[in-house]
Amino acid sequence: MLLNTWDFVAKLLPIWHFLKKYDGNTAICDLVAGFTVALTLIPQVIAYASLAGLEPQYGLYSALCGGIVYAIFGTIPELNIAPTALLSLLTFQYTNNVSFGNVRAAIMLTFFAGILELLCGILHLGFLVDFVSTPVVSAFTSAGAITIACSQIKNLFGLKYNAESFIAVWKQFFWHIEEVRLWDTLLGFCCIVVLLSMRKLKDYGEPPMSNEKSSSMCKKAVWFVSVGRNAMVVISCAVVAFIFKQHDYKPFSLTAQVPSGFPNFSIPIKPIEASNNTEGIEISQMMAELGYGIVVIPFIAILANVGIAKAFARGKVLDASQEMIAVGLCNIAGSFFGSYPVNASFSRAAVSSASGVRTPLSGIYTGLMVIMAFTFLTPYFPYIPKATLAAVIICAVIFMVEVSITKTIWKINKLDMVPFVVTLISCLFVGIEIGILIGILMEVCKLLYFASRPKIIIKKVEDKKPYLSITLSTSVFFSSAEYVREKVFQYSLDSGQNIQMVLIDCSRMLNIDFTAEKCFESLVNDLEKSGKSVAFLASGGRVAKSLESCSGNKIQIFKSEEEFELSWQGKNDAQLGNGEIEAVTTQL
Amino acid sequence: MLLNTWDFVAKLLPIWHFLKKYDGNTAICDLVAGFTVALTLIPQVIAYASLAGLEPQYGLYSALCGGIVYAIFGTIPELNIAPTALLSLLTFQYTNNVSFGNVRAAIMLTFFAGILELLCGILHLGFLVDFVSTPVVSAFTSAGAITIACSQIKNLFGLKYNAESFIAVWKQFFWHIEEVRLWDTLLGFCCIVVLLSMRKLKDYGEPPMSNEKSSSMCKKAVWFVSVGRNAMVVISCAVVAFIFKQHDYKPFSLTAQVPSGFPNFSIPIKPIEASNNTEGIEISQMMAELGYGIVVIPFIAILANVGIAKAFARGKVLDASQEMIAVGLCNIAGSFFGSYPVNASFSRAAVSSASGVRTPLSGIYTGLMVIMAFTFLTPYFPYIPKATLAAVIICAVIFMVEVSITKTIWKINKLDMVPFVVTLISCLFVGIEIGILIGILMEVCKLLYFASRPKIIIKKVEDKKPYLSITLSTSVFFSSAEYVREKVFQYSLDSGQNIQMVLIDCSRMLNIDFTAEKCFESLVNDLEKSGKSVAFLASGGRVAKSLESCSGNKIQIFKSEEEFELSWQGKNDAQLGNGEIEAVTTQL
Repeated sequence: MLLNTWDFVAKLLPIWHFLKKYDGNTAICDLVAGFTVALTLIPQVIAYASLAGLEPQYGLYSALCGGIVYAIFGTIPELNIAPTALLSLLTFQYTNNVSFGNVRAAIMLTFFAGILELLCGILHLGFLVDFVSTPVVSAFTSAGAITIACSQIKNLFGLKYNAESFIAVWKQFFWHIEEVRLWDTLLGFCCIVVLLSMRKLKDYGEPPMSNEKSSSMCKKAVWFVSVGRNAMVVISCAVVAFIFKQHDYKPFSLTAQVPSGFPNFSIPIKPIEASNNTEGIEISQMMAELGYGIVVIPFIAILANVGIAKAFARGKVLDASQEMIAVGLCNIAGSFFGSYPVNASFSRAAVSSASGVRTPLSGIYTGLMVIMAFTFLTPYFPYIPKATLAAVIICAVIFMVEVSITKTIWKINKLDMVPFVVTLISCLFVGIEIGILIGILMEVCKLLYFASRPKIIIKKVEDKKPYLSITLSTSVFFSSAEYVREKVFQYSLDSGQNIQMVLIDCSRMLNIDFTAEKCFESLVNDLEKSGKSVAFLASGGRVAKSLESCSGNKIQIFKSEEEFELSWQGKNDAQLGNGEIEAVTTQL
Repeated sequence: MLLNTWDFVAKLLPIWHFLKKYDGNTAICDLVAGFTVALTLIPQVIAYASLAGLEPQYGLYSALCGGIVYAIFGTIPELNIAPTALLSLLTFQYTNNVSFGNVRAAIMLTFFAGILELLCGILHLGFLVDFVSTPVVSAFTSAGAITIACSQIKNLFGLKYNAESFIAVWKQFFWHIEEVRLWDTLLGFCCIVVLLSMRKLKDYGEPPMSNEKSSSMCKKAVWFVSVGRNAMVVISCAVVAFIFKQHDYKPFSLTAQVPSGFPNFSIPIKPIEASNNTEGIEISQMMAELGYGIVVIPFIAILANVGIAKAFARGKVLDASQEMIAVGLCNIAGSFFGSYPVNASFSRAAVSSASGVRTPLSGIYTGLMVIMAFTFLTPYFPYIPKATLAAVIICAVIFMVEVSITKTIWKINKLDMVPFVVTLISCLFVGIEIGILIGILMEVCKLLYFASRPKIIIKKVEDKKPYLSITLSTSVFFSSAEYVREKVFQYSLDSGQNIQMVLIDCSRMLNIDFTAEKCFESLVNDLEKSGKSVAFLASGGRVAKSLESCSGNKIQIFKSEEEFELSWQGKNDAQLGNGEIEAVTTQL
């Protein structure tokens, strides 16, 4: 009993399992990885916060809880729970126009997203993610990346306008094209060139924990420079802006002044009380304003998380429910400390993996770095040029545009280009969450179509007494019942007068429902009216039982083809199986 | 070419086919059937009109076009297109509260329903009906009948209140119970008793065209009396009310005065123009007010029609698309002559069938009778007691409550009781159109579940070089890909160290998609990492082609088990098939 309790605790708190064998070596590995991830993470989340329409410190607040809570409840060492580009974009879309302030709305969204993720984990609803096919996910991610990159065009060129959708962004851009600020543009493009070049450097370096013998300190340094590129670019640009400002020269659009220090603890959902000059707002009203965001954000988060977790759990068994619970708790905890919705990110997981992470505890080290950032660095945030942050975002997302997958899809399965293209176009031109919904619906319709049109195999067995053998390749349910009835009836009629027996082979069927049974019953009646006997082949199980109870002993059910032949041809065992099969037709 | 044109015309206008061999004998049969159906139809549609919240003459207008247009475009002789109880109830629900008048709304609904039915017919969308399972249809019909019967309680007891839903009706009834009018109640219950007794009479009579030799004139008369029971009861009650009125005595609530004569021809959809004291209403605004009714009514109509048509086309091939086109045209034509949505009715089709109908032309005779009714009978409508009409409706619908099916479902497939009960309860307590939607969604989820959890058959073949054979019983798509990957991986690991080859048998698979291929690819990689080789069995076709293009010759694909054994065991043909199968496990 005591043991069981411990097992249960260990299952709920995977940190227990990791702590048991935590030694100095593991701790060093985690520390290095945690530090390296922080180098990528800190400049990224500051940029993502602006993408979400929030001040930079909210990016840091959001990164704090994620790492620490995931260290306790998470199972995949590589994962780092913090703001991501896609969730930032969605947060912006759902909180941009709410009447009670976008900060409050984003925090509330985090809380609800966390609750829903937790629930999905507890109820083991992770399988829902299986209903989103790879082409749809890929098109959605690509469209999201394109939308995000486009949304940063304005900061890259130093423009000021409000636009959310892909089309609106470009319309506004061309509308304001004469207001382009030279210095911002120059800085932005320089940053992009530098970031992409430094990214390329990684190919010539080696991860710190690499086991290859040839790895020199020099190569490790190159790798670190490449991974720390965001931090370096942001710091350099801030320093340049700082120096310019000392000389009273302000060529760049800069980030706003932000308060420093720890985030305040506050309840994420509370109504706004009426004051002298403002009306109060109820929680239900706030939820109504957040709308579908309450559902869309956790769904997208789970989708991304399960995908990333699977990628890094390869070969091991993934506890998807525990993962959902962990991310849910990260969001719930975060929502008490000013976090907006957080999630795992593929790029950070890749950095963490390359840095030789050993346990999820590395998240704690990342968290400590984040605390240092908002304790000591916030006074310098107002010197970060917006164009630099735009460059960081663009360089992070352009590699999410999966161009190469189109080639693979085209090569392997041309039909799957349809959901890909439809999802991509709807995501870009209608809205990314509607786009993914359209994609999912399309794919579900495909599934329903194939489930409703089972393969029917027809054999004409020419023997002493010829018969028609019709094999149903899969379970028949209401949606295929009528189709099967019509087809089987048609084939039986077409088989001609000399065929007086139709054997319907249900042995491959695993299941049947009431509608299908009623259809079989009427099929038997119809065939008997046109002078043909019907027998069924069902090798025990649910189908045989259902057919028996359905017909009330009116129809013949055989357990095997031999038993049927014995009864129909009156043969003995030795003579069996000599029937000549005339034609085999397969019907989809 | 000329022949093809004629064939095309004959397909579009099935009347052509019937007229070619129309002779005196057929005409007499159709005339008798048409007359008999009219006897049932006329009192029924007057009653149904009141159920739809319309004046009685609209029931007759609606019955006129249906019969005549269906005679031209329809293919099933038994079908009679006119108001039905279910469509009347739905019409009431969707037109009751519109701002531009319920008559105009009902007619507009007819037009849109017709257009959608026509479109579904032209686009061959009839298969959509397959997605509604028998338990769901049955629960929906039963709930509809119960709701209709309950809605007539007020007329039966001479009460006056407005209530639509099942719950509201009973609440209002008990609220007004002290206002019950004795004479109405007495008349109503007498009518019910008489109608049910006369219905029972049919068992002792015989249809007019019966071929049995024992059929006497007497038996035929009994049958006619039974079929004409609605007409007789309505006429008798109207006569009684008339006599009472001559003596200035009005014990019963009577039907309102109605205009006599032909319906006016008018365009069913036109905007209401602004006048001095009223604002104009645009068509788009009217459509918005009709809401989901525009979709729900044609869907329910098609559902009912396909069901009835199938029941009466038994053994013949049903042209479902032509049927939808015919009913669509009935509604479109009707909407120009003041019709509300019309449809086939099972009870009328049964009467028509028993009366020996030969061709759809009998609808024209019914139509002529309807014209006579509204030409000569309308002055007498105000004498029809409301309680009598309520009794007619109740006696028509109570047999639609399918109690017996619950027993059959329970006997054959207990699991199917769930959609039945859920649909029934939601139809009664939430709303009948939401109820059927819930039922359909439930069943579609069942379908998706089974489509996503294919049967996996595992065989351990103990031979010179043992291997694990895993058969996938059906196509693998995105929704089952991950499940299959996990299961196959798990079984392969569980099979132990001595098994170094996993044969994945895809020969039963008919199709595969990109997501599944990618999953197979990663499965192969994962298995190879854990020291197991993988081979696929795919006997040509799309699956083999996809697997080949997916792997880039990395994975082995064999056309047959023999070919695989030859390669793996290095056996020659004669030694094949001697492997001992150790264990067969089947996994759902």
